[in-house]
Amino acid sequence: MDPDAVAKAFVDHYYSTFDANRAGLASLYQEGSMLTFEGEKILGSQNIVTKLTNLPFQQCQHRITTVDCQPSGPAGGMLVFVSGNLQLGGEQHALKFSQLLLLPCWS
Amino acid sequence: MDPDAVAKAFVDHYYSTFDANRAGLASLYQEGSMLTFEGEKILGSQNIVTKLTNLPFQQCQHRITTVDCQPSGPAGGMLVFVSGNLQLGGEQHALKFSQLLLLPCWS
Repeated sequence: MDPDAVAKAFVDHYYSTFDANRAGLASLYQEGSMLTFEGEKILGSQNIVTKLTNLPFQQCQHRITTVDCQPSGPAGGMLVFVSGNLQLGGEQHALKFSQLLLLPCWS
Repeated sequence: MDPDAVAKAFVDHYYSTFDANRAGLASLYQEGSMLTFEGEKILGSQNIVTKLTNLPFQQCQHRITTVDCQPSGPAGGMLVFVSGNLQLGGEQHALKFSQLLLLPCWS
């Protein structure tokens, strides 16, 4: 399967889960996953989801503009760089966002 | 040495080299390095530098706003996420940019 297509499918799934059911992101992280969020490092699926569900907004919609991916190295895995707009509920203007996802190898 | 400090020093060196002597970036990439640039994948130090030196602007100045880094996995190495403004020569307004650098492990 085309790795770029897998990465894009993951990105769609990640952000639709983020927008519809943020707690559901728990299944997309592992115990050893790390989130760096605006300078703060957060380790582990449960801590990451606690951080994301406590962000100071409830309703949101991510609109993806670009998805760039490339292999992350000889050990396998994929780096996925995402940019787009983040529309918050009740706000007139969208925010710009960018995020890097490091996907482990799959087979 | 603090890995975050090493990453930040690398970022400063990378962008000051980019702005002052773009061809000098060759020494900061390896033969197996890959650059993904706006959807295009470019493999190898020499091809990457050819791409970067042929961008449609000559004078530029990167102003870094954020540098976030975290370990890239059990094999070592560091993911560094950079965002900031890119001022092009002769242009009134700066562009926003973001870039992900994957640094191999060092010792």
